[in-house]
Amino acid sequence: MSTNATKAERVNRQFLLLSRPVGDIKESDFEYKEAPVPTLNPGEALVRNLYLSLDPTNRIWMSDMVQYMPPVELGEVMRGVAIGIVEESKNPNLQPGDYVTGLLGWQDYALLKDNQANFVTKINPPLPDPLFAAVGPLGVTGVTAYFGLLDIGQPKPGETVVVSAAAGAVGSVVGQIAKIKGCRVVGITSSDEKCQWLTSSLGFDAAINYKTTDLNSALANACPNGVDIYFDNVGGSILDTVMSHLNLFARIPLCGLISTYNSTSPVPGPYNFGLILMKRVRVQGFIISDYHNRWHEAIKDIGEWMKQGKIKQEYEIVEGLQKAPKEILKLFNANKIGKLIVKVS
Amino acid sequence: MSTNATKAERVNRQFLLLSRPVGDIKESDFEYKEAPVPTLNPGEALVRNLYLSLDPTNRIWMSDMVQYMPPVELGEVMRGVAIGIVEESKNPNLQPGDYVTGLLGWQDYALLKDNQANFVTKINPPLPDPLFAAVGPLGVTGVTAYFGLLDIGQPKPGETVVVSAAAGAVGSVVGQIAKIKGCRVVGITSSDEKCQWLTSSLGFDAAINYKTTDLNSALANACPNGVDIYFDNVGGSILDTVMSHLNLFARIPLCGLISTYNSTSPVPGPYNFGLILMKRVRVQGFIISDYHNRWHEAIKDIGEWMKQGKIKQEYEIVEGLQKAPKEILKLFNANKIGKLIVKVS
Repeated sequence: MSTNATKAERVNRQFLLLSRPVGDIKESDFEYKEAPVPTLNPGEALVRNLYLSLDPTNRIWMSDMVQYMPPVELGEVMRGVAIGIVEESKNPNLQPGDYVTGLLGWQDYALLKDNQANFVTKINPPLPDPLFAAVGPLGVTGVTAYFGLLDIGQPKPGETVVVSAAAGAVGSVVGQIAKIKGCRVVGITSSDEKCQWLTSSLGFDAAINYKTTDLNSALANACPNGVDIYFDNVGGSILDTVMSHLNLFARIPLCGLISTYNSTSPVPGPYNFGLILMKRVRVQGFIISDYHNRWHEAIKDIGEWMKQGKIKQEYEIVEGLQKAPKEILKLFNANKIGKLIVKVS
Repeated sequence: MSTNATKAERVNRQFLLLSRPVGDIKESDFEYKEAPVPTLNPGEALVRNLYLSLDPTNRIWMSDMVQYMPPVELGEVMRGVAIGIVEESKNPNLQPGDYVTGLLGWQDYALLKDNQANFVTKINPPLPDPLFAAVGPLGVTGVTAYFGLLDIGQPKPGETVVVSAAAGAVGSVVGQIAKIKGCRVVGITSSDEKCQWLTSSLGFDAAINYKTTDLNSALANACPNGVDIYFDNVGGSILDTVMSHLNLFARIPLCGLISTYNSTSPVPGPYNFGLILMKRVRVQGFIISDYHNRWHEAIKDIGEWMKQGKIKQEYEIVEGLQKAPKEILKLFNANKIGKLIVKVS
């Protein structure tokens, strides 16, 4: 798709939310549409999407559960974080050629209104290399890991940090930051290959394949001094099991509950809920948009750590917007390492 | 019982824990025993108990659930907070005539060892009036309310505070401190009489009888701006219902889970657990012994507020140690207002 084509020649490929998933997401929950490329009113800008980030939280937005933003409406373009380049602008703050990231949606072109409703942030030069790191460690997943661990978790050197979905985009960065902060780090993940990657490549002290080992005894072995921070991405029975290993005054940054998103019936909280009282635990939910004003702090530190080789990220790059409805299933079948990104065109 | 009697003439009435309750506490879970009054070794002191505090947490200590202190062993004197007077002392820090409070047990006489294992604190003159306020608002329940609300809950003027077991010893003080701090205060309790007491005598803005009203709609009416702090003493379905009214960044100081203590099967956490994430809620357990070093802060403020008439407490005083095994049931059948105390002899 050439940027020199006239608007009339171009289409805006979009995926709309057609139906709210019942249980697992199905490709048929999305509807493909070719819309005209938007024209601009004063104050607006047109962004062409380059990379689309696929994240577990997308599943939340597709549902109508009580959530931290309004759900995506049926018939609306599917919400998603992306990296794009400004093609046209009638907004004095954005120039053609600027790179931006934010809630640009599952589409080729996003229209940015004056009101900043899309949480768009300009990516200032020097650009990250690779550029798509701006939706990974230098973007929403890295910043999530950073504030969730440091601001909510408050790690101290020598403490033990356990993280679930440890080979995921957020979990893998959580573990690496915890190592930088002098903690013992134990990852919970779903394959021996991922365990190997966490300990060999990322420096985790231990990794547990919860699908093939008894999590309870594996945690006892891997955490001889108990668990001070459990960075939770999954909820469910794994949360329950980790809770039984918590130390006094442990912290649980609650980042995600992916094990529950596809449930078709009400999911109870952990049976070990009473331990929050007995062990004086702090369980605290957070959403990264709350840290919008402190974003730069995280980017500065993570950028520095990446230069020093202390934070690495694996990516799985899928070619073509058309594949997004199928590829998103990978987030839920535990079949990927690192950050899942769609190269839009 | 005269303090002039020789030790040989005196007995130490004790209630031992005979069996761990299955479900509700039964009187037969305790065994009555008459033991000799202890004799002192160097460093020890002998305390005669005057008032014994009955508290929901006693039920935890009787069980072998994972808890914040070792459970009471079978055959051991039942643990309890009491007020006593030093009768004899071979400890330079305690003089005969000193009043103390701490874990003195369900007995006439407590032997204080050198090691302070009983969390004993001297009650400095001027003594509270009534003296038994030292196990109420000027003691463990008042200090629990104070730090749970102020340190964990962090109330701001204009916020809405909901408290469960609101007519209990802790809950009633929580609500009054929240009013002092400029909050809207809503109590959840179990009778119209208690509701009346909370709103008429203690200044609660609203009170809900959860036994006769639909809690969900009553909360919606009583909390038009949502709930910022839920001070929870009960857990269970009430916690679940209140959670659905939480505002963004709400706090839940988790003080007790009395609805679960008598359960004979595992109790799940709240079905609304996911809202901790969506609403960025902080759920934090606390135990008042963690605040041992800051005790005086609470006593100073609460004492001042009591003088100003801003904190009131009702007491139910039961005469005679013999009645403790029966009276403790009142904590669980919701049949009392304020603080339940046994006058030992």
